[in-house]
Amino acid sequence: MHGEIITIGNELVSGRTQDLNSWYAAARLTASGLKVIRVTSVGDDENRTADALKRALTSSHYVIVTGGLGSTTDDMTCEIAASALDRPLCIDEQMLQKIESFVRARKITMTESLRKMALMPEGARMINPKGATCGFSLLTGGVHFYFLPGVPDQTRYLIDTFVLPDILSRYDTLPVMRQRILKLYGLNEPRIAEIFKSLEEKIGEVVLGFYPHFPENHITISLRGKDEPTISKTLDRVETAISEMVGAYVFAHDGREMAEVVGGRLLKKNKTLSVAESCTGGLIGNRLTDVAGSSQYFQGGIISYSNQAKMDLLGVSTQTLENHGAVSGETAREMALGVRGSLHADLGLAVTGIAGPEGGSRDKPVGTVNIALSSEEGTFTEKYRFWGKRKQIKLNSAMMALDWVRRYLNGDPFISGI
Amino acid sequence: MHGEIITIGNELVSGRTQDLNSWYAAARLTASGLKVIRVTSVGDDENRTADALKRALTSSHYVIVTGGLGSTTDDMTCEIAASALDRPLCIDEQMLQKIESFVRARKITMTESLRKMALMPEGARMINPKGATCGFSLLTGGVHFYFLPGVPDQTRYLIDTFVLPDILSRYDTLPVMRQRILKLYGLNEPRIAEIFKSLEEKIGEVVLGFYPHFPENHITISLRGKDEPTISKTLDRVETAISEMVGAYVFAHDGREMAEVVGGRLLKKNKTLSVAESCTGGLIGNRLTDVAGSSQYFQGGIISYSNQAKMDLLGVSTQTLENHGAVSGETAREMALGVRGSLHADLGLAVTGIAGPEGGSRDKPVGTVNIALSSEEGTFTEKYRFWGKRKQIKLNSAMMALDWVRRYLNGDPFISGI
Repeated sequence: MHGEIITIGNELVSGRTQDLNSWYAAARLTASGLKVIRVTSVGDDENRTADALKRALTSSHYVIVTGGLGSTTDDMTCEIAASALDRPLCIDEQMLQKIESFVRARKITMTESLRKMALMPEGARMINPKGATCGFSLLTGGVHFYFLPGVPDQTRYLIDTFVLPDILSRYDTLPVMRQRILKLYGLNEPRIAEIFKSLEEKIGEVVLGFYPHFPENHITISLRGKDEPTISKTLDRVETAISEMVGAYVFAHDGREMAEVVGGRLLKKNKTLSVAESCTGGLIGNRLTDVAGSSQYFQGGIISYSNQAKMDLLGVSTQTLENHGAVSGETAREMALGVRGSLHADLGLAVTGIAGPEGGSRDKPVGTVNIALSSEEGTFTEKYRFWGKRKQIKLNSAMMALDWVRRYLNGDPFISGI
Repeated sequence: MHGEIITIGNELVSGRTQDLNSWYAAARLTASGLKVIRVTSVGDDENRTADALKRALTSSHYVIVTGGLGSTTDDMTCEIAASALDRPLCIDEQMLQKIESFVRARKITMTESLRKMALMPEGARMINPKGATCGFSLLTGGVHFYFLPGVPDQTRYLIDTFVLPDILSRYDTLPVMRQRILKLYGLNEPRIAEIFKSLEEKIGEVVLGFYPHFPENHITISLRGKDEPTISKTLDRVETAISEMVGAYVFAHDGREMAEVVGGRLLKKNKTLSVAESCTGGLIGNRLTDVAGSSQYFQGGIISYSNQAKMDLLGVSTQTLENHGAVSGETAREMALGVRGSLHADLGLAVTGIAGPEGGSRDKPVGTVNIALSSEEGTFTEKYRFWGKRKQIKLNSAMMALDWVRRYLNGDPFISGI
């Protein structure tokens, strides 16, 4: 029960416009349990379009085609479809009436290019004939083609309202498709790859997917089948097997962001958080406050980008800065203690490090980051070495710091540093 | 001189992830005067991938392939390419050494899946062998294939630094294509559309492009031709015509981000900046510190997410909070003054608003945001109403606040609010 998507338009192959139509169509088809095997974009070009249509005829059960249905001279999808799929063009009376009433309503003159819009391949059936936006479908060689306009809003409407129900109505035995997503932080790609290998024999029909999403890694566990309870049970089994191996690194089973997970734990434990950010420069606060309702547990923070700010606003001592430097466990510790006190929060989280590209030294290379977490139980600090560019180092620092709060509230050990 | 793009990954044909790689590659190739005839996305599927590669072999001069180059079991591009393009797989010594030194540096264990990454089709040449990110190229049947990883940042880097120069070096008679990009903030899309219309007769061969990039709008001005000076002159003329109409809203002519532009102005004027963030929660600090060297002018900030923090750390008076509320021009003014003082900065920038979805009222609906800027010349405040979801309101608030600093340092008036 697989199909494909063809999108037509010079703006797509020139990179001028993002191809939102294929993205949407693929997501909707997949969510309905259908499989998309290919997405092809071609320019407003007769040969390439014909080629794509002919190829679809031999490899798919259904084909969604978008673009090239308007009235301008580069809108040639009808002609090309007629020729490629061997169906002569003829005037569709229903469509012609529609155009004529449009012309009357707008008090404009009927033109050749408007009349041209009533030409459709023989056997084509209008999609949404009564609406303002329409397309047409064509069954040929056992393949259902759906030709839609290129305007994303119109395409989405027609896909949801007409195309998807039409495709689904042909498959009453359509398999169910269910997917789980595990989000991991702190485990490197090669190690996850090893784990995948060791699972391969256990998973049977289950499809595992691995998606690096810096600095996170996402694992998808998918299964298609006939019986929902059986699928659920199988997915449970595989999820458990994976969790046994990497569970300590899974921060979300439900698609939530790290900051949402941390916020949920803070709410549940009735704790408040404050942050002292040096190299992350506000990124942790930004992530926390992306979550609606975060003011219930996030008190605020101090972006102490200068030593002066570390001393004045966080109470880091001159001695500490002189003896150990701004990037040190000692400074991180005092920052965490300081921000926890000045913001009257249960937890004080601090990050100080070297995001680069300048500022590194032999002892403290770019990517050196100290994290500290202060609570009534005491203050913990740890040193990390992150890799990559400035933004990546900032991102890893913020993620690790948030992961500390998550692990602290769960009673789990922190990921160890260097 | 035409080519095509093939992107590989289940996440693409399932609609889970937007295909940013093909979009970027198409835009870059087109901007360089090359023609892209087709973009094909297939899943991690041997037959479909092989089919796409073989078809490219008969229709294109160059092919950019992304995805499937990692170390997990679904990364099969090397094997498939070897088989489809009839080149046996063999260990690439250069690549193997690279992996071995990576393993040594990170102190991890060499595994089979890591070793697998050194397998490449016979005759393949590494792209960027000295860098952390690499791919490989393969010349076969007169067609240049470039195989790249699927991670967008890496792909972009390799395309710009290696692939594009390599392709271009083969076409010395290629027409020149030059493009200017104007980044605008604060002008709505319908007004830009009107401006485009009025320009249409003046621009001749010049191609104008319009790309909303929330909350910015980007205008591209492109021209293809044989003679570089003529092209430059024409582009200058069109850029001037556009600037006459929308120049006040253009914050960058050179691709820089708003925070980079602001940082450049601060450096030039020898001024330091501090921020007091309420609804933006650290986003402004984060953007400022994404810029390398920002510690030269950014002193830091205070994320005053609670009223207590506004009083304790910024000196906002209880009376002001009681009489006017946390989201008010008066509070913004005291926040800006307070942060400027406590961080010893030349400028104090403050934002307080309602990012939603909760917290709005009849008088102060979600999206109400007050901005204030304090300097030796005094403190200015203004009230805005932004639309959209939480993150969009945060983003617009941060952009507008940064635009205030830019305009202040340029001596330009601020964009007016409500």
